Formats: sequence, structure tokens, C-alpha cells
Amino acid sequence: SRRYSITLLPGDGIGPEVISVAKNVLKLAGSLEGIEFSFQEMPMGGCAFDLAGVPLPEETLSAAKQSDAVLLGAIGGYKWDNNEKHLKPETGLLQLRQGLNVFANLRPATVLPQLVDASTLKKEVAEGVDIMVVRELTGGIYFGKPRGFGTNESGEEIGFNTEVYATHEVDRIARVAFETARKRHGKLCSVDKANVLEASMFWRKRVTAIAAEYPDIELSHMYVDNAAMQLVRNPKQFDTIVTNNIFGDILSDEASMITGSIGMLPSASLGASGPGVFEPIHGSAPDIAGQDKANPLATVLSAAMLLKYGLGEEKAAKRIENAVQDTLNKGFRTGDIYSAGTKLVGCNEMGEEVLKSV
Amino acid sequence: SRRYSITLLPGDGIGPEVISVAKNVLKLAGSLEGIEFSFQEMPMGGCAFDLAGVPLPEETLSAAKQSDAVLLGAIGGYKWDNNEKHLKPETGLLQLRQGLNVFANLRPATVLPQLVDASTLKKEVAEGVDIMVVRELTGGIYFGKPRGFGTNESGEEIGFNTEVYATHEVDRIARVAFETARKRHGKLCSVDKANVLEASMFWRKRVTAIAAEYPDIELSHMYVDNAAMQLVRNPKQFDTIVTNNIFGDILSDEASMITGSIGMLPSASLGASGPGVFEPIHGSAPDIAGQDKANPLATVLSAAMLLKYGLGEEKAAKRIENAVQDTLNKGFRTGDIYSAGTKLVGCNEMGEEVLKSV
Ligand SMILES: CC(C)[C@H](C(=O)O)[C@@H](O)C(=O)O
Ligand SMILES: CC(C)[C@H](C(=O)O)[C@@H](O)C(=O)O
Repeated sequence: SRRYSITLLPGDGIGPEVISVAKNVLKLAGSLEGIEFSFQEMPMGGCAFDLAGVPLPEETLSAAKQSDAVLLGAIGGYKWDNNEKHLKPETGLLQLRQGLNVFANLRPATVLPQLVDASTLKKEVAEGVDIMVVRELTGGIYFGKPRGFGTNESGEEIGFNTEVYATHEVDRIARVAFETARKRHGKLCSVDKANVLEASMFWRKRVTAIAAEYPDIELSHMYVDNAAMQLVRNPKQFDTIVTNNIFGDILSDEASMITGSIGMLPSASLGASGPGVFEPIHGSAPDIAGQDKANPLATVLSAAMLLKYGLGEEKAAKRIENAVQDTLNKGFRTGDIYSAGTKLVGCNEMGEEVLKSV
Repeated sequence: SRRYSITLLPGDGIGPEVISVAKNVLKLAGSLEGIEFSFQEMPMGGCAFDLAGVPLPEETLSAAKQSDAVLLGAIGGYKWDNNEKHLKPETGLLQLRQGLNVFANLRPATVLPQLVDASTLKKEVAEGVDIMVVRELTGGIYFGKPRGFGTNESGEEIGFNTEVYATHEVDRIARVAFETARKRHGKLCSVDKANVLEASMFWRKRVTAIAAEYPDIELSHMYVDNAAMQLVRNPKQFDTIVTNNIFGDILSDEASMITGSIGMLPSASLGASGPGVFEPIHGSAPDIAGQDKANPLATVLSAAMLLKYGLGEEKAAKRIENAVQDTLNKGFRTGDIYSAGTKLVGCNEMGEEVLKSV
């Protein structure tokens, strides 16, 4: 039987609850497909700061590096909001991304037919939306140098960052995006601000160059302000979107809110080789932590992405995806996606129900 | 009687059509309030490039500087899309903003009761939305240096920009935003990415410092990715938003699309002194240019903002706002906001109808 080692990073808030559910689902789906997992749980985020004084302890990063894939819950909370920058939970996340070199962040925004009413968009606008945002994750203004604080020629205080992309950075994310579009509906929209920013002109030039390798994919370009509008006006026009780190941060969150059920949305962060990081897109929700109220399905679906994109185990992934569909079809709902006529369950019970269908 | 000189920049595409309507409305509303206007029409954008080889001729900028206010139609079009950067219509717009030092861009996103159905958001989510986005317009990554193309240590090609803010830049836009919030519902949300970017940490620090001058205003902070979500989830939570140039570009467009009728939305760009620039937020729509199909109301309402924010002529401004309301109440609609049971009119006829109600 195939064996994989998984690093679990439950993190903060509702992280441990949803990871515990996803772990059980992963185990069962794996065993039914002849896969054996070894799990190692490591601290990261606010809990790691409390335990070890830093948000990403060295042992956590090296365990992650040595494993086949990383499943992350959620990090952060009010408690650590005033930490110095290098001690913030978020900084741990950025260090993990950089440490594992996971430059490609895949974020699906899919409106499930069972949950179309959860969207704030009109039914006819929301139904059928199925977008994949491919976000560059280890470059751009998030990591660009120089950055910091200083004074300008007039002796005034300033704060500054650098948005910068190099050829190989754009080329590799563009290839991931073209490959992704190929497995979907063959349409790729590259989002930039090339009418103003040189970094975006460069981005557009490289994406256009790489397009030559993918003549079967229909490539378009869109300015980021227009993309933010079009996601609201007619999200169905999009298939696959590729964009830089900061625009991807904004647009992928906007796209996920359009589905109305961010408690359902997974994500994958992938490198050229080595383990990927799989995590729900929602946050740590400290206000409902420990109350068995969290929706574990985004993490369960992240486990499915782990199987599919991280390990190439499509069959086991499909089992999980189908089990989630079945569970929704049976009417089970956590509070965040509850509507009249459905059955309200907690985090654990939702997990039990999914297990029944795996 | 009071006299003002207005620079008209009709620009490209539908610009001339909507400016011609707005000019007539401005004239009439003014004359009824004892105001006399002198108008000077100058080339800017693609038409200026065709005429004079540059998107913002010197004569245009100096005429604008010498006038009391600038009313702009729209610029750009396919024809000039491949112009070199310094010859693009958009570059002319950036030069105008910088040349007039209009650092504060006010962009209302209001859902009119008559047009609530035009929104792609559900009625209960859209109705009553009334947001003012205050966008910093002459700083940040749009103008920051260094910028350009080059090679990195590995000899690879790069494209780069600098996001930078200095104390006086944040302080002055923050004051405009607090003042704006004071005239509205007393709530200001400052949007940044202070969990990642130093420029945003600096922004937040200065906005927080200026808040001490406005104890009556309720200030909150939100990360830009969350703001992009919250605009979709529950736009009514926002009163006034203040943010940097690039985030403002994205969020103000998202907010305006939420209203569903961007053909209705005006904007004002203001400096510390000197003439402001008033323009519809929509583009030049080359596909319908010259066909008498454009909606002139965004430009008409921009003329109202010109009176109110540019000249302090509140009464004349109110006349225009009321005339637009009356015209909508009578059921007149251009194609972009048409729905069954209303009266479809062209750009000119819409203008005639507004004139009747001024
Ligand atoms: C927590 C934060 C640093 C992070 C980001 O900005 O990348 C988050 O918003 C995300 O999208 O994963
Ligand atoms: C045309 C473009 C340069 C401009 C901008 O990015 O500021 C436009 O999008 C706007 O919002 O006025």
C-alpha cells in the first residue's frame, strides 16, 4: 500500500476542530484506496508563539519540509493582534510559504447548487459560478525589497514596499495557470494594472510570451479594477484567473464571498516540487472556537485537494468530494450555511456524516 | 452675479456627448441661482494625442489650472491601446491629477431606490447602500519611485514599482476622509494591508494619529482582502471608506458595480486649493460612441459635485440632484438602466428631460 506522511498544522481558533475532522476523513478515504498515512501534528501561528515564542518554529518548518504534504487549519486571533510584526501569526504563514517555496496558490470559488441561496448575489448571477483563482504566492509586494520605514528628501517619515517580479517568477506561475485552465474550460484571464504599473507591464509581457506554449488556451488580460467589477457584474464569464500576490489576495477573497459560503472553500499552495500546503480559505474565527460550531467542510475539501494536487491520488480525492456532496444533499448544514428546511449540525456531527459517505 | 470659469475636457468615445448634456444642465442650474459660467473646451486623452501628439497638452493643463473647476468626460479607446506608456490617454489623466495636485478622490456608490433592481446583489442586500470611497489619488504605487525595468542579481529581467507614503500625504487624505465622514454618518473605515506591508502599517499609524482630531468620528480599520469580501457580503455596513491609491482604484470600482448602475455614478478629485476635477466613473465606451445611447446622468451628477465640492454652490447642486431624481421618477431611462415598464430614451433626450426639471 502507498504511504504518505502528512504534517498537520491545526493552528489557532477553530483550526484544531476542523483539522481533527479532516484528518479522520483523510484517513478513511485513504484506507479505502489502499493509502496509509502517518500524521505529525506541529505548532504554528499564535499557539506556536505562546509555546515557543515564534509563529513558525524551526522544527515545524523542517517537519513540513520532510513530509509529503501539509494540512493547515487556521491561524491568528485577537490575542496576538498586537504582536510585533515578526511575531505575528500571519508572519508565520508567510514564512511557511516562502520556506516551502509554494509559489502557486489555487483557490477555487465554486457555487454549489445546494448552497446557491447563500450568495448575496441574485440566483441567476450566482448559479453555476465556477472560478479558479491562481495567485502568485511567494513574490511581489509581499516579499519585495527594499521595504520598511525611513525618511524622504524633505525629512518626512515614510513607509514603503517594493512590488517586483522577475522572469522566472511570472513564467512559472503562468505555466501553472495555463495547465490549470487546460484541465478546466480552457480560458485564462490574466489580471494586472498594466496601464499604470511597470511591474504589471512586465507581468503581461511574460504571460503573453508563455501563452505561445499553450495555443489551445484562450488568454485574455484584464485590469484589476475592472476584474473587481466584473466579478460582481457577471462572475460566470471567468474560468481561470491568474494574478500577482496582492491582487490575488483581494480578488480571490472577493470571488469566494460571491459564492456566499466561504466555510466551504479550500485552497492549495504548490511549489515546483516538495510538499504543498492545503488549507481552508476561512480564518480562525476565535469568536466560535471550541464551541463545535465551525464548518469543517472547507478543511475536508482541502484534504481532497491535498490528495489530488499534492499526492496525485485522484480517486481518494473524488471519494471525499462526493461524500461532501452527499452530506449536503442529505440536508446537513452547519450554522454558517444553514437555511430553513435543512438540518443544523455541529462541526463533529458534520464530520461523522461525511465519514458515512466516504 | 457670481462668475466661474470651467474647463471642459470632453475627451474620447462618449465623452463629448455626455459633456454636452452636462454643460447645458450646469448652465441652467447656475443661471437660476445667479451664477454665470464661462466654458473653455480643451483636448485631452486620445483626441489630444491625435491632435497634438500628447495625451495632456501643456495648454490644456494650464487652462485647467487657471480655471475654477474641470469637468471631464471620459478618455481612452482601442485606437490608442498600443500607444507607448507616456502617450497613452491614461497617462494624460495621471498627469492631470498630479499637475492639479488633486490628492483626494471622492467616489460615492449609492443605490438609488429607483434603480435597486439594476444591482446583481439581492434587493435586501443592495437597497439603501450609500458608501463614499475616499481614495488617495496622487501618491502610492501609482507615482512611487524607483520604478521601471531592470535586472536582478541573477541577471534576470524584472519589472518593479514602489508603494510609498509620507506623513503629509496620509495626514491630508485622512483629514479629508474624517471631514467627509462628519458630513455623512460619522463612520470611517480605513482600508489597508497592515498585516503584511510596511507602507500600510505607516498608513494605519498616521490615520490613527489624525483620528485624535476627530473624536466624534467612529474609526475602524480593515484589511483590503476582507474589505473586498465585506462589500459583497454586506455593503450597508460601510459609510465612508478611506484607502490608498491602488486599493481605492480596486475597491471603488467594486463598490460602484455593487450599485448596478455605474452609468449613474459621479466622482470628484480635490486638492488643498485650486480647481478640482469632476468626472463620471464610467469609461469612454467606444462601442456606443456617437450613437446617442450613452447615459449622461453620471456626468450631470459630476456637474452637481462640481457645484457642491468645487464651488461651494450647494443650492445649484441640489437643483441638479433633484432634477435627476425627478427624471428617474418620471420613468426615463437610457439603455444601461432600462427595465420593463420604463421609458427608453437616448443621451440627448435624457438631457432634455433633466433640463425640464432643473
Ligand atoms: C493572513 C494573510 C497574511 C494572508 C495573505 O495576505 O496572504 C491571507 O489573507 C491569505 O489570503 O492567505
Ligand atoms: C485609467 C486609470 C489610469 C485610472 C486609475 O487607475 O486611476 C482609472 O481606473 C480610475 O480609477 O480613474
